Amino acid sequence: MTKKQLFEQITKKNSYLCVGLDTDIKKIPSHLLKEKDPIFEFNRQIIDATAEYAVAYKPNIAFYEALGAKGWESLQRTIEYIPQECFTIADAKRGDIGNTSGLYARTFFDQSSSGLDFDSVTVAPYMGSDSVMPFLEFEGKWVILLALTSNAGGDDFQQLSIGDKHLFEQVILTSQQWADSERMMYVVGATKADKLLKIREIAPEHFLLVPGVGAQGGSLEEVSKYGMNKQCGLLVNSSRAIIYASSGEDFAQVAAKEAQAVQQEMKKYLQKYL
Amino acid sequence: MTKKQLFEQITKKNSYLCVGLDTDIKKIPSHLLKEKDPIFEFNRQIIDATAEYAVAYKPNIAFYEALGAKGWESLQRTIEYIPQECFTIADAKRGDIGNTSGLYARTFFDQSSSGLDFDSVTVAPYMGSDSVMPFLEFEGKWVILLALTSNAGGDDFQQLSIGDKHLFEQVILTSQQWADSERMMYVVGATKADKLLKIREIAPEHFLLVPGVGAQGGSLEEVSKYGMNKQCGLLVNSSRAIIYASSGEDFAQVAAKEAQAVQQEMKKYLQKYL
Repeated sequence: MTKKQLFEQITKKNSYLCVGLDTDIKKIPSHLLKEKDPIFEFNRQIIDATAEYAVAYKPNIAFYEALGAKGWESLQRTIEYIPQECFTIADAKRGDIGNTSGLYARTFFDQSSSGLDFDSVTVAPYMGSDSVMPFLEFEGKWVILLALTSNAGGDDFQQLSIGDKHLFEQVILTSQQWADSERMMYVVGATKADKLLKIREIAPEHFLLVPGVGAQGGSLEEVSKYGMNKQCGLLVNSSRAIIYASSGEDFAQVAAKEAQAVQQEMKKYLQKYL
Repeated sequence: MTKKQLFEQITKKNSYLCVGLDTDIKKIPSHLLKEKDPIFEFNRQIIDATAEYAVAYKPNIAFYEALGAKGWESLQRTIEYIPQECFTIADAKRGDIGNTSGLYARTFFDQSSSGLDFDSVTVAPYMGSDSVMPFLEFEGKWVILLALTSNAGGDDFQQLSIGDKHLFEQVILTSQQWADSERMMYVVGATKADKLLKIREIAPEHFLLVPGVGAQGGSLEEVSKYGMNKQCGLLVNSSRAIIYASSGEDFAQVAAKEAQAVQQEMKKYLQKYL
């Protein structure tokens, strides 16, 4: 999916919501456990219920991996099921030396190899350029690079001073030599909305994937006010607050209501800040 | 496996060799392709041939993931097959916010969940303390934290100056607050053997996992001379130079010879530098 196509979806749906599929076998409603593939069944119903309000889906790969081969089968069914017009993110935080990152790229982008065909993958920057470039060799696919994360430990290294910059700023600056805003996005933790101004100074055109709104407590208005650019430039993720809004048989209906509420708020901000 | 037990294996085998199982379906001898699980069959024969000379095995998870669910089954068979006395490393370079890292820990350490039961996993430091701690909640399991990597892009961020230190040194210093040398090791690229002295100053007791000897071109003597401590403190990995030493039907025999040659060299260095 191109940046232009993504923006078209955003204006069509009046939404920049990404639904995080952090699907935990221990948390899904118990009536699903009798299904052949409960994880996929949960995802299927969540996707059906929320696709009207969401422009992107982000399976958190850890949740599938933790179930071994069976989990990968659920993941494969899920990614096949997501409507074509939605942007898909493998939240995998991968990154290794060149030939190994090439294999990770094959994992998430080459359906003939792994059965998976995501639009994008999240990548950790620590190993530098050649750990990121192999993902960009797949035409039309995106790298979403970790810049500033919303967890407490994020401060341990990302906020360290490199001359007059913080490490996360240096990551954004250096990585712009590897790809432009048509192929790269950044993960930016929403709980640091004040940092968004700084980030927009050095990356005005890029899409930002913002986790941490909802269960992690960031403010959607602040993120939208300071983070939005002319092509929206935001994908705001919500996982638990939507998919686990109800633990009963009505989980999909309640998820739809939650997703709609976020979408309605986003519609307002699109009118106000775009 | 405890640090003491690992050192016992090293002295028993006169070896600190780790064999990297970077098993690529496109590179294994063609006669194996008729097997039901060619990847496992290759690994099985490599393990049989090299277990006398190696104290550790390191499957590179990307190679298995790239094959989807089938790859995870091959990985599961492989990890079950590796002899109990060998230290096992999931080279996965994972790391995410707390609850997600918890799931990755389950993936590699909790056999009842994923079918896998590794002794250790490689972890990327960028997201800080709470991305690493969940792995340490599994008793007796190890975190091997990326510090200094041997790839060209490693310099992009790891060598940046934070005050009077480089980022990779800061990672080593900060992470020592999370676990001591009984639970944590560091990945240190062998092509920077001069850096080993610096690292030994700040981490005298830790085991270092050293990739980059062999195909990546580091010097084993230099690594051993500057990196060895009183409990050896080194696991030196070789992947391609051993497992792909021959592409014929004799691949396992030739791999054994290569592994033995490295082990003989290591025996010499253990006598000289331990």
